[in-house]
Amino acid sequence: MLQYDQLSLNIPDTQKPRVVIIGGGFGGINLAKKLKSKDFQIVMFDKQNYHGFWPLLYQVATAGLEPDAIAEPLRKLFDDCDDFHFRLVKVTGVDTALKQVKTLIGDLPYDYLVIASGSKTNYFGNKQIQQNAFPMKQMTDALNLRSQLLQSFEQASMTKDPGMRQALLNFVIVGGGPTGVELAGSLAEMRKHVLPSDYPGLDFSLMNIYLVEGLDRVLPPMSPEASAKTRQYLEKTGIQVKVKTMVESYDGETVTFKGGEQIRTQTLIWAAGVQGSLIDGLPADAIERSRILVNEFSQVNGTQDVFAIGDVALMKTPDYPNGHPGVAQPAIQQGALLAKNLFRLSKQQVPEPFKYFDKGSLAIIGRYQAVADLPKKLHLSGFVAWIAWLFVHIWYLIGFRSKLIVLSNWLYRFFTYDRGTRIIIRPHVRKDDTVAHEILAKSEML
Amino acid sequence: MLQYDQLSLNIPDTQKPRVVIIGGGFGGINLAKKLKSKDFQIVMFDKQNYHGFWPLLYQVATAGLEPDAIAEPLRKLFDDCDDFHFRLVKVTGVDTALKQVKTLIGDLPYDYLVIASGSKTNYFGNKQIQQNAFPMKQMTDALNLRSQLLQSFEQASMTKDPGMRQALLNFVIVGGGPTGVELAGSLAEMRKHVLPSDYPGLDFSLMNIYLVEGLDRVLPPMSPEASAKTRQYLEKTGIQVKVKTMVESYDGETVTFKGGEQIRTQTLIWAAGVQGSLIDGLPADAIERSRILVNEFSQVNGTQDVFAIGDVALMKTPDYPNGHPGVAQPAIQQGALLAKNLFRLSKQQVPEPFKYFDKGSLAIIGRYQAVADLPKKLHLSGFVAWIAWLFVHIWYLIGFRSKLIVLSNWLYRFFTYDRGTRIIIRPHVRKDDTVAHEILAKSEML
Repeated sequence: MLQYDQLSLNIPDTQKPRVVIIGGGFGGINLAKKLKSKDFQIVMFDKQNYHGFWPLLYQVATAGLEPDAIAEPLRKLFDDCDDFHFRLVKVTGVDTALKQVKTLIGDLPYDYLVIASGSKTNYFGNKQIQQNAFPMKQMTDALNLRSQLLQSFEQASMTKDPGMRQALLNFVIVGGGPTGVELAGSLAEMRKHVLPSDYPGLDFSLMNIYLVEGLDRVLPPMSPEASAKTRQYLEKTGIQVKVKTMVESYDGETVTFKGGEQIRTQTLIWAAGVQGSLIDGLPADAIERSRILVNEFSQVNGTQDVFAIGDVALMKTPDYPNGHPGVAQPAIQQGALLAKNLFRLSKQQVPEPFKYFDKGSLAIIGRYQAVADLPKKLHLSGFVAWIAWLFVHIWYLIGFRSKLIVLSNWLYRFFTYDRGTRIIIRPHVRKDDTVAHEILAKSEML
Repeated sequence: MLQYDQLSLNIPDTQKPRVVIIGGGFGGINLAKKLKSKDFQIVMFDKQNYHGFWPLLYQVATAGLEPDAIAEPLRKLFDDCDDFHFRLVKVTGVDTALKQVKTLIGDLPYDYLVIASGSKTNYFGNKQIQQNAFPMKQMTDALNLRSQLLQSFEQASMTKDPGMRQALLNFVIVGGGPTGVELAGSLAEMRKHVLPSDYPGLDFSLMNIYLVEGLDRVLPPMSPEASAKTRQYLEKTGIQVKVKTMVESYDGETVTFKGGEQIRTQTLIWAAGVQGSLIDGLPADAIERSRILVNEFSQVNGTQDVFAIGDVALMKTPDYPNGHPGVAQPAIQQGALLAKNLFRLSKQQVPEPFKYFDKGSLAIIGRYQAVADLPKKLHLSGFVAWIAWLFVHIWYLIGFRSKLIVLSNWLYRFFTYDRGTRIIIRPHVRKDDTVAHEILAKSEML
């Protein structure tokens, strides 16, 4: 058994400047990659030992990809780097005066600290939704949702009560951004191509997929053209889109919208908001809307040697007065530039300000159905956008093995329409569901 | 939330004879496959919704394969069969007088019942080992072990106390059968090719792998030639083999062997015994050494229409007075023959007695290192046996997608020596390990 006094970070002392990176996401790994060749010691902390390719997380949730296909072990990514040190531990705070990070294991002095901790689900203070809804931010979320989907169909096969059966076949996705749209599209494909032959006793014309968005269109970050096309695709696939609709409450059985409408559902998926994953010890005026305010060099307001990049950072620029979108590209580009800038700063040279190059946005609804906003206000949809989406995602996926496995799965799915990972490894059960708990416990599945 | 009175098995009534199969393992699925074309209604119960290819489970545990690659959804396997019904529910017992199976959801009458529920870990009554050891029988076992292995190295990187660090680097595998041997070989390959570059701060010459066997040789079910060759391979790879050694106790910190020797270890893997997964309601004299006694037609002693096949069955024949080995081939062959025999019985024809055709046994230790016992007392080892092992496993793996993914992983590993799934999705923590619990809870990893 572990004892706290036995534990220590064990980072070797060094003469080189030490860069501490919190988080192994897009920002953190691109920063570390570009720093590798320079004269720094790099220490990376993350509470998870792999880099997750979150754009494909929804495919894990809908049994189209295995989780291991979108996860690259962080130690493997940097095993060719001499002075790179990874520690699987959570960073709890920073002491900017002493220039130390604080972790659950111990403290570590830094020369430069880069906070790249990303974002987490935002329930907007609604604890009931937090308790009952299914988020979609990390791997366990996707696996719990996968189990929940499959368990719902199994239970629906064994339910006599038509009201409960309908509740098991109603799926409500809250959040009309890319995550919600892609999840809805994927569920609709399952409903059409896979589920009827898996569950011949169930009538899948009764399965409802709702996509709920608070603003006035789906895919609000994309162009109106992309939104309109996406809505068309979604409705053609039989998804019921509700815009300008906000969730009031969800008790695990019924979701109530502001305005009073209710839907009985056992599965409410919350893809409706994110907030930054903050750490303690930053200046109070450096936090705005749970993101960390930084200047154009990614320096945290009120500090010299603390930086923030990616989703957790809020860099206000003329083009992006509310900060950059919480997608991969800003994190990747900020990480790469910061590596260059840390090198310059360590040589007392002038750093380069960040200018975001928006390479465009993509979203996919189904087979041959995608939308793309490209630079110079070019909008694509349909087959071309679909091919672009596939290509971009394989390109940016980290790790040769992952590319191989994902491509194999996609080719398999393209030709067979099948989704190969329809397996429940760890059943999901709500804490208050005593009957389900009892059944699973007696089945030795808990 | 579920209510018991809402649940029902919902199996449609039928004029055809109903065959109820408990278990979707090698025996159950081969029986169902061969029955498909005949005039039966087939109902399959399993507490898990997929068929697991357990011969490759050890590769999931040692981060060489993803779990989804060795799991085939049962509904998918039989989606082309009109009168096949799957229910994800545990069968608790049988009433042979009323000819009904009892499940946690409800009862179902049968015409023929086939118990193909397989086997589970046997701790020989030692509750302390059951609480502290890592079994290797089902998917969650392999994933827990994978997490434990990776977490051990992470913790070892952060441990100041040399005694604890050594305990984290000592791995004791109890059971010198194929499971234990293949696991040991796989761990040795990780130690040699992967771990030193993943954990540059750790000295892997300190990592010990022990393989402990109670009988006088490893691989007791195989030939003495195979055992001797295997021992040679194991020791050449640096595995410490202890035969004629039994475990007295294991408290989670130290394993004590009969005779007094002790080894400090945080990871004791129990691959030392199995017992049949029985159900209630069978005649008492039909159970022997926790397996179900059957005649040469797989009929359970003392019943007419209840059968048992595979690991759970004990069929004594002149060639196999203690029953057939608990491997795939007897289950596959018994399942196929039983399908033929059920057809004959339903037509009042004479069934055919079972005669096991032993196609041979294989075990793998490492790259180019395998042993094979073939019919006519032919023994192979080395490269030829290794190729045979690879080929046979891909051949018998169920599902085209699985074959594709496994082959991709093996090709990738062959050329890079890398193991791609070194990820901890759900950390493992022992119930009594309060410090680890606290750290994981504060890291939001629980």
